[in-house]
Amino acid sequence: MRRERVRDVLHQVADGALGVSQALDALAFEPLDATQSADALAFATIDHHRAVRQGFPEVIYGAGKSAEQICEIASRIAERGDSVLVTRIAPDAADRLQASLDNVEVNRVARTAYRPGADRPVPGKGSVAIVTAGTSDIPVAEEAAVTLAALGDCATRVTDVGVAGIHRVLARRAELTAASVVIVIAGMDGALASVVGGLVATPVIAVPTSVGYGASFQGIAPLLTMLNSCAAGVTVVNIDNGFGAAVAASRITHL
Amino acid sequence: MRRERVRDVLHQVADGALGVSQALDALAFEPLDATQSADALAFATIDHHRAVRQGFPEVIYGAGKSAEQICEIASRIAERGDSVLVTRIAPDAADRLQASLDNVEVNRVARTAYRPGADRPVPGKGSVAIVTAGTSDIPVAEEAAVTLAALGDCATRVTDVGVAGIHRVLARRAELTAASVVIVIAGMDGALASVVGGLVATPVIAVPTSVGYGASFQGIAPLLTMLNSCAAGVTVVNIDNGFGAAVAASRITHL
Amino acid sequence: MRRERVRDVLHQVADGALGVSQALDALAFEPLDATQSADALAFATIDHHRAVRQGFPEVIYGAGKSAEQICEIASRIAERGDSVLVTRIAPDAADRLQASLDNVEVNRVARTAYRPGADRPVPGKGSVAIVTAGTSDIPVAEEAAVTLAALGDCATRVTDVGVAGIHRVLARRAELTAASVVIVIAGMDGALASVVGGLVATPVIAVPTSVGYGASFQGIAPLLTMLNSCAAGVTVVNIDNGFGAAVAASRITHL
Amino acid sequence: MRRERVRDVLHQVADGALGVSQALDALAFEPLDATQSADALAFATIDHHRAVRQGFPEVIYGAGKSAEQICEIASRIAERGDSVLVTRIAPDAADRLQASLDNVEVNRVARTAYRPGADRPVPGKGSVAIVTAGTSDIPVAEEAAVTLAALGDCATRVTDVGVAGIHRVLARRAELTAASVVIVIAGMDGALASVVGGLVATPVIAVPTSVGYGASFQGIAPLLTMLNSCAAGVTVVNIDNGFGAAVAASRITHL
Amino acid sequence: MRRERVRDVLHQVADGALGVSQALDALAFEPLDATQSADALAFATIDHHRAVRQGFPEVIYGAGKSAEQICEIASRIAERGDSVLVTRIAPDAADRLQASLDNVEVNRVARTAYRPGADRPVPGKGSVAIVTAGTSDIPVAEEAAVTLAALGDCATRVTDVGVAGIHRVLARRAELTAASVVIVIAGMDGALASVVGGLVATPVIAVPTSVGYGASFQGIAPLLTMLNSCAAGVTVVNIDNGFGAAVAASRITHL
Amino acid sequence: MRRERVRDVLHQVADGALGVSQALDALAFEPLDATQSADALAFATIDHHRAVRQGFPEVIYGAGKSAEQICEIASRIAERGDSVLVTRIAPDAADRLQASLDNVEVNRVARTAYRPGADRPVPGKGSVAIVTAGTSDIPVAEEAAVTLAALGDCATRVTDVGVAGIHRVLARRAELTAASVVIVIAGMDGALASVVGGLVATPVIAVPTSVGYGASFQGIAPLLTMLNSCAAGVTVVNIDNGFGAAVAASRITHL
Amino acid sequence: MRRERVRDVLHQVADGALGVSQALDALAFEPLDATQSADALAFATIDHHRAVRQGFPEVIYGAGKSAEQICEIASRIAERGDSVLVTRIAPDAADRLQASLDNVEVNRVARTAYRPGADRPVPGKGSVAIVTAGTSDIPVAEEAAVTLAALGDCATRVTDVGVAGIHRVLARRAELTAASVVIVIAGMDGALASVVGGLVATPVIAVPTSVGYGASFQGIAPLLTMLNSCAAGVTVVNIDNGFGAAVAASRITHL
Amino acid sequence: MRRERVRDVLHQVADGALGVSQALDALAFEPLDATQSADALAFATIDHHRAVRQGFPEVIYGAGKSAEQICEIASRIAERGDSVLVTRIAPDAADRLQASLDNVEVNRVARTAYRPGADRPVPGKGSVAIVTAGTSDIPVAEEAAVTLAALGDCATRVTDVGVAGIHRVLARRAELTAASVVIVIAGMDGALASVVGGLVATPVIAVPTSVGYGASFQGIAPLLTMLNSCAAGVTVVNIDNGFGAAVAASRITHL
Repeated sequence: MRRERVRDVLHQVADGALGVSQALDALAFEPLDATQSADALAFATIDHHRAVRQGFPEVIYGAGKSAEQICEIASRIAERGDSVLVTRIAPDAADRLQASLDNVEVNRVARTAYRPGADRPVPGKGSVAIVTAGTSDIPVAEEAAVTLAALGDCATRVTDVGVAGIHRVLARRAELTAASVVIVIAGMDGALASVVGGLVATPVIAVPTSVGYGASFQGIAPLLTMLNSCAAGVTVVNIDNGFGAAVAASRITHL
Repeated sequence: MRRERVRDVLHQVADGALGVSQALDALAFEPLDATQSADALAFATIDHHRAVRQGFPEVIYGAGKSAEQICEIASRIAERGDSVLVTRIAPDAADRLQASLDNVEVNRVARTAYRPGADRPVPGKGSVAIVTAGTSDIPVAEEAAVTLAALGDCATRVTDVGVAGIHRVLARRAELTAASVVIVIAGMDGALASVVGGLVATPVIAVPTSVGYGASFQGIAPLLTMLNSCAAGVTVVNIDNGFGAAVAASRITHL
Repeated sequence: MRRERVRDVLHQVADGALGVSQALDALAFEPLDATQSADALAFATIDHHRAVRQGFPEVIYGAGKSAEQICEIASRIAERGDSVLVTRIAPDAADRLQASLDNVEVNRVARTAYRPGADRPVPGKGSVAIVTAGTSDIPVAEEAAVTLAALGDCATRVTDVGVAGIHRVLARRAELTAASVVIVIAGMDGALASVVGGLVATPVIAVPTSVGYGASFQGIAPLLTMLNSCAAGVTVVNIDNGFGAAVAASRITHL
Repeated sequence: MRRERVRDVLHQVADGALGVSQALDALAFEPLDATQSADALAFATIDHHRAVRQGFPEVIYGAGKSAEQICEIASRIAERGDSVLVTRIAPDAADRLQASLDNVEVNRVARTAYRPGADRPVPGKGSVAIVTAGTSDIPVAEEAAVTLAALGDCATRVTDVGVAGIHRVLARRAELTAASVVIVIAGMDGALASVVGGLVATPVIAVPTSVGYGASFQGIAPLLTMLNSCAAGVTVVNIDNGFGAAVAASRITHL
Repeated sequence: MRRERVRDVLHQVADGALGVSQALDALAFEPLDATQSADALAFATIDHHRAVRQGFPEVIYGAGKSAEQICEIASRIAERGDSVLVTRIAPDAADRLQASLDNVEVNRVARTAYRPGADRPVPGKGSVAIVTAGTSDIPVAEEAAVTLAALGDCATRVTDVGVAGIHRVLARRAELTAASVVIVIAGMDGALASVVGGLVATPVIAVPTSVGYGASFQGIAPLLTMLNSCAAGVTVVNIDNGFGAAVAASRITHL
Repeated sequence: MRRERVRDVLHQVADGALGVSQALDALAFEPLDATQSADALAFATIDHHRAVRQGFPEVIYGAGKSAEQICEIASRIAERGDSVLVTRIAPDAADRLQASLDNVEVNRVARTAYRPGADRPVPGKGSVAIVTAGTSDIPVAEEAAVTLAALGDCATRVTDVGVAGIHRVLARRAELTAASVVIVIAGMDGALASVVGGLVATPVIAVPTSVGYGASFQGIAPLLTMLNSCAAGVTVVNIDNGFGAAVAASRITHL
Repeated sequence: MRRERVRDVLHQVADGALGVSQALDALAFEPLDATQSADALAFATIDHHRAVRQGFPEVIYGAGKSAEQICEIASRIAERGDSVLVTRIAPDAADRLQASLDNVEVNRVARTAYRPGADRPVPGKGSVAIVTAGTSDIPVAEEAAVTLAALGDCATRVTDVGVAGIHRVLARRAELTAASVVIVIAGMDGALASVVGGLVATPVIAVPTSVGYGASFQGIAPLLTMLNSCAAGVTVVNIDNGFGAAVAASRITHL
Repeated sequence: MRRERVRDVLHQVADGALGVSQALDALAFEPLDATQSADALAFATIDHHRAVRQGFPEVIYGAGKSAEQICEIASRIAERGDSVLVTRIAPDAADRLQASLDNVEVNRVARTAYRPGADRPVPGKGSVAIVTAGTSDIPVAEEAAVTLAALGDCATRVTDVGVAGIHRVLARRAELTAASVVIVIAGMDGALASVVGGLVATPVIAVPTSVGYGASFQGIAPLLTMLNSCAAGVTVVNIDNGFGAAVAASRITHL
């Protein structure tokens, strides 16, 4: 363990067993904060230190990992008492994970698996509003909601209020202004982000989704809309990235 | 219900129970036209008001919605006597819908389901010509045709008249000039829109389709062709969006 | 002149000077409606027939043409008593045109030059609302306005009502619903088209503009937004193409 | 039948039964060459006239058409004694076609079905060399070869001579220079077209293929390579479009 | 003025001059919060209400506006005692603005002009760190800094700490963790956002810049890098959009 | 000189001065046809051999070359009696070239400079029709025309016959069918290539041009249109590449 | 065999049986290095000469080839005693290959099949470090590792050290600096390549992978990141191309 | 200075003035190798440590920096005796730099400025061949050559050997195989990289250039060609990035 090794070096210096210049060489080029974080499997290096550094442990991105790999990583994290969150998990991998660990909650719409850690997460200040333009955006909203819950945040939902019927979102204005952060999830034209960005004074995080006709191009259209929002102060995460939006929101509520 | 709440406020003002400035505050920032339109399911907010505002009720975009969600929304709309139109519906969802509601007409080529409302739609003025460049464009044409019928419009078909044999479209010129609006549906080079746009004086709505060899790029090629049409006055909708073209045409015939 | 040639052939047949099968060969493959329309300069073939076919004469697209070419084409059109409209005209070419023809009205913001024809244009039914999201969209709006006037249409303006302050467009709702056709011009996120498309029941023609920060990509962002509008029935023309939108609108008002 | 109708008009003029100006009106705006070509099914308008106009009958593009549609169109063409060529035909549609028509030759690699017509095709002058860069390009080469045979052309093959081993193509130089036209088919870097274009003086038609690693982007990489060929005089057809290259080559050999 | 009109309606109801149901109709569909915000010039509709709604007045985006337009809008805003901020202002327009209004501070690197309002802006909580990868990113950083100051925020700078020398950013870690919000500005590979996103627990807003060699594509490369950041919780604004990042940061510090 | 060196080797073998296996080593890996072609300047290696190999000498692509470099290369080529053709030459470089060599013909519209060689070029069989959609396409057409003349080909022009007035191209059908090869040059929608491709049976070479409104994207729109032409047998060259189209046409006429 | 034929020619010259000028003609235009390399199957031309020319035999790219084709090519290569390496091999083709040849090692994660040749490969100098950003990048790393082994190189692995936890890669710095060449494999933001490029002085080869959320666009995002690396000297291969990176690395270790 | 500060800490521990755990806290999270490298100007943080870490000092990328900034940074680097290299320097900035520092060598074609350091660079092993496809690629080649010289490498040139005349590059084969590393610079089709990659066994670094006709898209075409090279082991740097290619080559020659 690195921290221990530094302590050893320092003790040796204190004891006169090691000269200052030798100690200097021993310490040079070492990223000391790595001391407690490297847990190397054959296929993964778990960043256990992240919980200390950023307030939540490493999250497992399920896409492209085998069920075996997910279970192995999850078990290492769980062993330390940290909470386990897997996103983009395939149905069969979720089943495998539930079979190998207790207390795993699977959300099939969100494609997530979650297992609470030994300690409850630090609660965020205020609530996060998750606003969706259409029913088809719900899986992304669910991913955000599961992530927020895992991070100690409280979320409210405002569903299916796309701008083609502008009164729908205006009617929910009170809920939007009551939130500390607003996550806007929309595909197709993605215009909801601009409208909401103009209605509230709080941070707005926009998530484009890959829903839509041909020239939506799997979400490029709403992505560009949101990046070009005429409502200043709207920020954007990747297409379908409900997880990322939730983490960004939680960074704000945990300031 | 919001309209009722406004009425209450007004009654209180009329009765002297509420001062004018207090009433003013109560009414500020409220989109009053939302009063009768919000019908919120867990996963959808139905815009019942749309039929009043735009002459046709909300249409259900089937892609990305589960069969259950489609049936639930459709049933809410049908209960009010409005007509139900579902586009991009998967075969099994269509089956489910037919099982759960009577009088549902499914068009498997168009991927639509339709259930007439209590009242017949207001008929449009004149007819809409649906022109296709090739046989492969027919599903998009069918979607347009079903939508037009649901909106009270009458459609004629001019099929497989791509410009590689220019005489084919010239031979059908009379049918094109007889229509109030012409919808041109074409993939590959999309050149038919420009030729038709030059032949008629009426509005031309172009629909690019995703049919074609590699560098058609799922419809980008004809989309760009149509946007760049040298025949002025051609307007364009999204790739494969027969539904959108039909609504645009119907807005014209219902002026 | 072609029509004369056909008459000659027919006279020869009537006179017995030409056999039927020879006449048939002579006539085959000839687009007879071309008879009076081809006026060939060295660098242009003027489509004089267009005024008959589509109700307005050929418009000169100024970009990529020299001042000499523009003046020569304009003079040929003016000689016939038709009205002359030049779009995308460079300042110096506009000066040259004003020097070479009388009664030429130049609009420097719209980059247009216009000279009325002998007859007044046929007036369109109703008016066309030109709605812009921001001040930077005004040149495109001007191009549309000049074109509409040339086509006999009457236009109203609703300026700078982008959705970041949604109340601005809602406050102008009466003007929007009063128009026969609405042209929505917006850059950046292009979201205004969807909001307007949901507010009115009339045809909406959207024009993306090339104004904006980096990832607007010279108008691709609002173009995609508009093509993916969640408000059904919105149609789209090319980036910055105020002229095309006006012609499309005029096709509708002249039905 | 239109040609007959024109003949009727002419006979009436010859007989004095119709005045010249009436005849003129009757003939105006008619594309006379359409007379014998329109054969309209519900879903297709067959361009029978094409064999007369361009030397080969309409070819059926199988993608996006149902087996029923293919069989129906093929049967109409075959009835007239013309040869039938279907490209991009799905295996089951090919089976159906063989069951419904005699003498149908199916090439599963090329995804084609061919049925000779009553007359043998006019032979082209010289031969066409089909050069491929790699084994994976063979299906496209086969499509070209089947098409060339159907058009009366004689093809030679130079296979797997990609430029990573430049001696391979240099060793086959004699075969390349002996051909009248060279079709170069390559994916990945598409560089073979430039090398061949520099070796021969004859027309070179390049076909990019969709084979390759990630940034080939389904053929965009070789498409761009070929469009930018530093060997002047190389022309390009669409990605994977062996059929189009063969038709272009045959247009040359049939001059 | 709309608020007055509502008050009139209410007074009439209070006086019995207007029935409740008539009043209801009069009020329906009106966005009441528009009452005091619309200030229409010929070319702009100023959103004065924004200061109330979002805590800062409308900002003038200088690109595409003439110097005259900018001065006119600025003067209207200044008249009300609000602060004036113009971004992307051309040098000559800045000169004109300084000539027409007193107290205008121009920052030529940031391309901004600023004139303080009657009241000092509400100070934000904590400070905002502005981190740049290279010297070429400084103009964007300046735009962010000017905007933050105008919004009442206090900014620190960490300059030229791109990841090619990873020790540079690690050496400044204390400054990063001390900030409430971190704005990361980087062109080329944009990798700094991911590294910073992993080092701090606070909100990180990434701004791609258009600096770099060919395949940076005017900022698309760092934009994509940032959207795909492996450090969860990084959000992104448009290319070169220092203004937008500052507003987003300020929304957070003003919670 | 390489051929001489081979001869030397052979003479030495014949004389017994060199053993067979040594000779073999000396000859191995040498591309013998390079013997007379390499003429190396500091900045260019002139392919004098090309005239022998492909029937025309190397052409100088002027873009990116200094006037000095162009003059130096041109002078080397002229010294050998070959004809000199420079494309994309800047006006001042053209002036310099005319000053340094006699008999140089400059075409400012085509941006070409040409100096005939000692021998007249071998005449091509038949003529090449150059068809343009609009006046703005003329510079590309001129480049093609100058190149064809230099290669010994005879060209006819069909100008400004875009498909928005379809009768214009139909009226010129005789000229199109009379040509051996047709070059179609069009920007915007590029649809003319498909129409011409369907009218004639001869080879059609399409050239997209960079003229047009926003979403033409500097010629991508017509490029894609032409690659996706529904008229089989149309081949395509690079955007604005009139030179390449001419060389491809000339390869056909010189078969 | 060509080399033999050249020898024959030389012998005939030595014997006086062939004149020098005849010999010259016989040898002209022949790429002599082709002599022993062309082994033509119907569908492939095996470049046996490559082992001599570049130190390793031709590798079979399995995508787009049938199992039969792969087995046939592999068997030809194996017959000569060369080693056989197949990449991107489908599971069933791998089974077929193992059934048809002995000693075939299949790596299902890497999608490779390998059969050692008669001679051991020449060992490279030093080792190659294969660094991956995440677990999902492992298949590409495996392809690189199998290829390196086949080429005689020795590889070390540094796994899952993405920059979101920068200490992870810093902790492995010693392993990175110990290698002769570093291959960095990363998807999503691809930022690891820049960080590693700044840490070591040795050649760094970056491989973008197609893993990630929407706007990764199948690897375009990390590809652009890597091409724009602010760490000078990083070179890039195609998306997911572990094989190519390994060959490039091996070219360096075999200098 | 950081290293000094660590030494201080250690001395204090050795002297008993500081407890071990306090020392531990003081040292934690510090990247110790940063001690001597941070030299912060207002606008730049110079990475002086880079010379130690990677064998050459920080290079100044001139684009986007003012002449003042360049001179200031250069002067700081020069003061330490390190060599100064500026790339992409504007002509006037180069003049300014020559005026402010002695011994500055400016290469106007390469757009570089270079000032040797106190020590001569460590010479690389072997030479680097710089191969260009055309004259227009020379500025990029010059940038590479200047950089190589600054890094202690020796370069040879093979100029204008594009594949349209394949004998040109074959004739220079000896020079290519004699080099340790080959840099291939090509625009348009970029095919030269694949041919060279197949000819030599040494590392090949490809540089796409932005020279060419329309669909070269400022270098995207050759970039994609090179990434998709069918010659395994070719690696690629950014468009026009001669500097990066030189650094990559030098990393190899300095192994």
